[in-house]
Amino acid sequence: MCDPGPDPYGALRSRLVDAGLLIPSSVRGVYGRSGVFEAVTEGLEALVTRAGADQRAEVMRFPPVFPRAAYEKTNHAHNFPDLLGSVHTFTGGRREHLALLETYEAGEDWTRDLVPAEVMLIPAACYPLYPTASGVLPEGGRVVDLRSYVFRHEPSDDPARMQIFRQREYVRLGTAEEAATHRDLWLERGQALLSDLGLPVERVVANDPFFGRGGRLAKATQREQTLKYELVVPVANAEKPTAISSANCHLDAFGLAFDIRTANGEPAHTACIGFGLERCTLALFATHGLDPERWALEVREPLGLA
Amino acid sequence: MCDPGPDPYGALRSRLVDAGLLIPSSVRGVYGRSGVFEAVTEGLEALVTRAGADQRAEVMRFPPVFPRAAYEKTNHAHNFPDLLGSVHTFTGGRREHLALLETYEAGEDWTRDLVPAEVMLIPAACYPLYPTASGVLPEGGRVVDLRSYVFRHEPSDDPARMQIFRQREYVRLGTAEEAATHRDLWLERGQALLSDLGLPVERVVANDPFFGRGGRLAKATQREQTLKYELVVPVANAEKPTAISSANCHLDAFGLAFDIRTANGEPAHTACIGFGLERCTLALFATHGLDPERWALEVREPLGLA
Repeated sequence: MCDPGPDPYGALRSRLVDAGLLIPSSVRGVYGRSGVFEAVTEGLEALVTRAGADQRAEVMRFPPVFPRAAYEKTNHAHNFPDLLGSVHTFTGGRREHLALLETYEAGEDWTRDLVPAEVMLIPAACYPLYPTASGVLPEGGRVVDLRSYVFRHEPSDDPARMQIFRQREYVRLGTAEEAATHRDLWLERGQALLSDLGLPVERVVANDPFFGRGGRLAKATQREQTLKYELVVPVANAEKPTAISSANCHLDAFGLAFDIRTANGEPAHTACIGFGLERCTLALFATHGLDPERWALEVREPLGLA
Repeated sequence: MCDPGPDPYGALRSRLVDAGLLIPSSVRGVYGRSGVFEAVTEGLEALVTRAGADQRAEVMRFPPVFPRAAYEKTNHAHNFPDLLGSVHTFTGGRREHLALLETYEAGEDWTRDLVPAEVMLIPAACYPLYPTASGVLPEGGRVVDLRSYVFRHEPSDDPARMQIFRQREYVRLGTAEEAATHRDLWLERGQALLSDLGLPVERVVANDPFFGRGGRLAKATQREQTLKYELVVPVANAEKPTAISSANCHLDAFGLAFDIRTANGEPAHTACIGFGLERCTLALFATHGLDPERWALEVREPLGLA
């Protein structure tokens, strides 16, 4: 594979910005989105909802922050410290405020006077669910329909690698078998749904971006056990397709961390399918062009744009 | 007014949680929301969209974080330091990570090893817009339709005082007259829209919660100039109605801070109406009961729930 040079992503990014679909900011990977972009995203999400209608999932919508105490029950700071987002605030009085402003006005690091707030930014849409699910699951387990903004500190020029973006998920909590069945079912459904929109989707075994040298083993193990699959499609870079959806088995990691048990008392297994809403939308623009009004009817119609 | 005691908000909060409409977390003011809650919110938002159809507003959707550099051009840390949310992350290598984990495992403050990320949580839905609007406005200015999660660090037992919630806004950028006209127009429209849903809305002159003793003058000035109005309705506490919408003139504060100019070169004035989506939804539940299926047809129909 040839070296794509210093900015392999600039071409698509510039076109998206010029077309007004993405509104750039001074921070890499942080964008606003236009009404046209959002209409495509909403159409895509409605398709996901229809695909999941038979699941009779519980709908839950969590905001983009969740309790720090819950975060600390996961291994996220061990495995992905470089991606985390910790929220800090000011709790001082008048005197401390004057000191803070002095630092601020001097252009120094005024944030050293802040303290950690009770919340963290959410790293994946299913994280805020687990602490609410502690205890014994009903017979047959649960299926939960989630959507949330998630934060990952990985500044990039790739428009498909945003620092803050939305995930739509269907999460299964239940036995090991129920979790694995859910993962496999949704991998099929996700691939069919995205292929039907004309996206050249491929399914690949994948791993999470475990941190550092110590993360190599975790990556290898995850791949060996084929716990994670991604649905990939070329977006900004033809050489390196982008994961627009992923389906994962977490084994009993969250069950143990949050004391979630199956009806017969075992630690629950969990699995999820996640659709990266911005990435799916960008894949549609990259594949079909930047003007949805000119997309083929077979694409416009299922998205509710016809 | 009698002292309502230590937890005047508990009754409604408990009822909302028992009905499954709000999903509590271990942090005060951070909740998940059910599908029923969201359906009401979506119906309310669709009404706001219809009310603004004649505005031909530009739709922009910003994520819940925006550039720290833009934040620092505002006076937010001067005026509302107690409400801010600063995002911090880890940028060290393997050695620093091991040190962080040591602190983490010891139950000490592991966040002291973090560094400020390039972003802050958004304090109001219009903040991320202004840095993208620098320069000269078109003749007649602009109207922008926004929705965003916003963060305010004010832990509370009042279910209507969340730390993280969504605002839907229509923002005007233009001359002083255009801004004032927009504010007044939307105050009327907002009051009509919410009253038509059976909410006993009152319009009151208001002020922002400027910090500390030094903020008293700013509050008084803002009220004297009647820059801010709120639409209030009893939600969790009959004695203290809750602002579910507010309409504000910012004068040329943002125009100056972000070098936004009118077509004739003056610093732009800005004004906005903001609907607190969770608060509007909670007001409907508090007023009409917790089961939307039992609401009067005159309420269900405009919300698209009939």
